[in-house]
Amino acid sequence: MPAPVLLPPTSYDHVTVQKVQGTGMTTASDILAAEEPLEIRIGYGPAAQREHRTLAITMRTPGHDFELTAGFLFTEGLVQARPDLLGLVYCPDVEKEEERENVVRAELASTLGLDLPRLERHFYTSSSCGVCGKTSIEAVHAACGPTLPATGPYVAPAVLHELPGRLRAAQELFDQTGGLHAAALFSLQGELLLLREDVGRHNALDKVIGAAFLRGEVPLHQHILLVSGRVSFELVQKAAVAGITILAAVGAPSSLAVTAAQNFGLTVCGFVRQGRYNVYSHAWRLQS
Amino acid sequence: MPAPVLLPPTSYDHVTVQKVQGTGMTTASDILAAEEPLEIRIGYGPAAQREHRTLAITMRTPGHDFELTAGFLFTEGLVQARPDLLGLVYCPDVEKEEERENVVRAELASTLGLDLPRLERHFYTSSSCGVCGKTSIEAVHAACGPTLPATGPYVAPAVLHELPGRLRAAQELFDQTGGLHAAALFSLQGELLLLREDVGRHNALDKVIGAAFLRGEVPLHQHILLVSGRVSFELVQKAAVAGITILAAVGAPSSLAVTAAQNFGLTVCGFVRQGRYNVYSHAWRLQS
Repeated sequence: MPAPVLLPPTSYDHVTVQKVQGTGMTTASDILAAEEPLEIRIGYGPAAQREHRTLAITMRTPGHDFELTAGFLFTEGLVQARPDLLGLVYCPDVEKEEERENVVRAELASTLGLDLPRLERHFYTSSSCGVCGKTSIEAVHAACGPTLPATGPYVAPAVLHELPGRLRAAQELFDQTGGLHAAALFSLQGELLLLREDVGRHNALDKVIGAAFLRGEVPLHQHILLVSGRVSFELVQKAAVAGITILAAVGAPSSLAVTAAQNFGLTVCGFVRQGRYNVYSHAWRLQS
Repeated sequence: MPAPVLLPPTSYDHVTVQKVQGTGMTTASDILAAEEPLEIRIGYGPAAQREHRTLAITMRTPGHDFELTAGFLFTEGLVQARPDLLGLVYCPDVEKEEERENVVRAELASTLGLDLPRLERHFYTSSSCGVCGKTSIEAVHAACGPTLPATGPYVAPAVLHELPGRLRAAQELFDQTGGLHAAALFSLQGELLLLREDVGRHNALDKVIGAAFLRGEVPLHQHILLVSGRVSFELVQKAAVAGITILAAVGAPSSLAVTAAQNFGLTVCGFVRQGRYNVYSHAWRLQS
C-alpha cells in the first residue's frame, strides 16, 4: 500500500492498477498526480463598464491556484505590480458546481490599461507550449522591461551542488506519484525557501513566482531558482520577468533558452547533479 | 569533445560552456537541442476566395517540420484524412529571410469545411500546455470520433519490457544533448518502426502521427506508441485521435490521462522500466 499523503486531496488521485513484473500481473493500488483544467478569467475596466473574459485555460495540478493565476498574469505581462491585482476568487458563476474549483477570476485594477490587441494575438497560440504570439527573441526582450542587474549577485559554485538533494527531499507529491515537475526558490546560501509542484513545468514556476508576487517580493534578484527538469525558452522568459538572476536545472537547456538567457543577463546552469554542472550563460556570477 | 552528430544541423547547436566539477571550473564545448518557433499557417476556402491565416505557433526542435504540421492539423481535428491536405510548403512570403524555415503553410482542400468558431475558441488558450478550448472530458471525447476497437489488438506482456531499451539506443540527439523528448511507434511484436525527438513532448508525438498520416497509415490500431517521459491528458487525446490502442511510457501518467484513456478505450502503461510496469486502463489487451 502507498504511504499516506499529507497534501490537499485534490492534488492526487488513488487508482487501481495492474502491476506487471516479468510476465506476472497483480492488482494493486497506486497514487497519481492530479491533472485538471484551470480556466483563468479576468475582470477589467472602469467600475461603470466592468467587463469579464476568459484569458487562458491551462492543465494543472490543483492546489495553489491563486498563486498560479497571479504568477501567470505577472509573467505574461498583464500585471506588473501587486496593486494591479485587486483580488482572486473561485468564480461564483460557473455553469456546473463541479467546475467551481477549476475557474479562478482575477479582478484587475480599474486603472490598469490592458493591451487587448496584444491579447488577441494569443489567439492562435498552439496548445503545444507556444510562445504567446511572441515570435522573436527581440519581441520577448522588449516585453521583459529592465535588464537583470549586471553587478551581482554572486553565488559560491559549491552551493549549487546541494540544491537538487534538498529539492528532492522536500518533493512530497513526487515521492508518491513519480510524475511531477518542481520549481523552488533558494537563498544565495542554498536555503530552500519555497517549493511548488505541478504536472506542467510552466505551472510549477508560475506558482512559485505568483507566491512571491502576492507577497510583494518581486523582483527576485537575490534568489536562486531550481527546476527539476529541462529549461525551455519559456522558463527563461518567465524567470527573467520575475527578476531571477540565477536559474539552475537538473536537466538540459535548449539552444534558445541559452540565447535568451545570454540576452537577458540571466545565469543558467544545467545538468546540476552528482557534484557537477554546466554554466551556459553569465558565469561571472559564480565565484566564491 | 562531443562525438560527431549525423542529424540535420538545424536540430542542434554547438555552445561553449563552463564545466563545474566540485569547485573547479573549465571551459568546454557542448551540444544543445535546438528550440525555435514554428508558425503554422493554413490556406483554406474555395479557389476564388482563398484565405490564409496563422493557426498556431509552437516551440519545436527544427527537423521533420512537415510531419509536425500534418500531425498537429490531424490531432487537433482540422483534417481527418489524407486528401484534406493538398500540400505543405515553407512559406515563401515571410518578412525576414531567416524566418523562412520557421513558417510552414498547409494548403487545405477547398471543399474542407472549417469550424472557424471552434478555432476562435482557441483564442485564450494558455501558452502553458492548454486544452485548446476543450474544457471537459466530454467535449474531447465527442471530438475524437470513433471509439477505439474493443476487440483487440492484443500484445504479449513481455514485449513492453524491451521497448525503452530499443528507443534509447535509437535516440541519437538525446545521446548528444540529454534534453529531448521522444515518441516512437513499434509493431505489436516490439519492432521499432518510427522514432521522432523534440524539445516538446507534444511535438515529438505530432511528428510521429504526422508521418503516419502523410503515408495514409492512420488509424494506427496495430501499433504500440512509446513515449520517453510522462503521459498528460493531451498525449492521450492525440494518441486516441490517431487510433493508437496501446500507449506505453517510461514515466508516470496523470490522473486525467488515465480517466481519458479509460473513456477512449486506450490501454495505458506507465513506469515501463527495469522489467516492470503498471497498467492503468484496458489491461485486457495484455495477454500472451
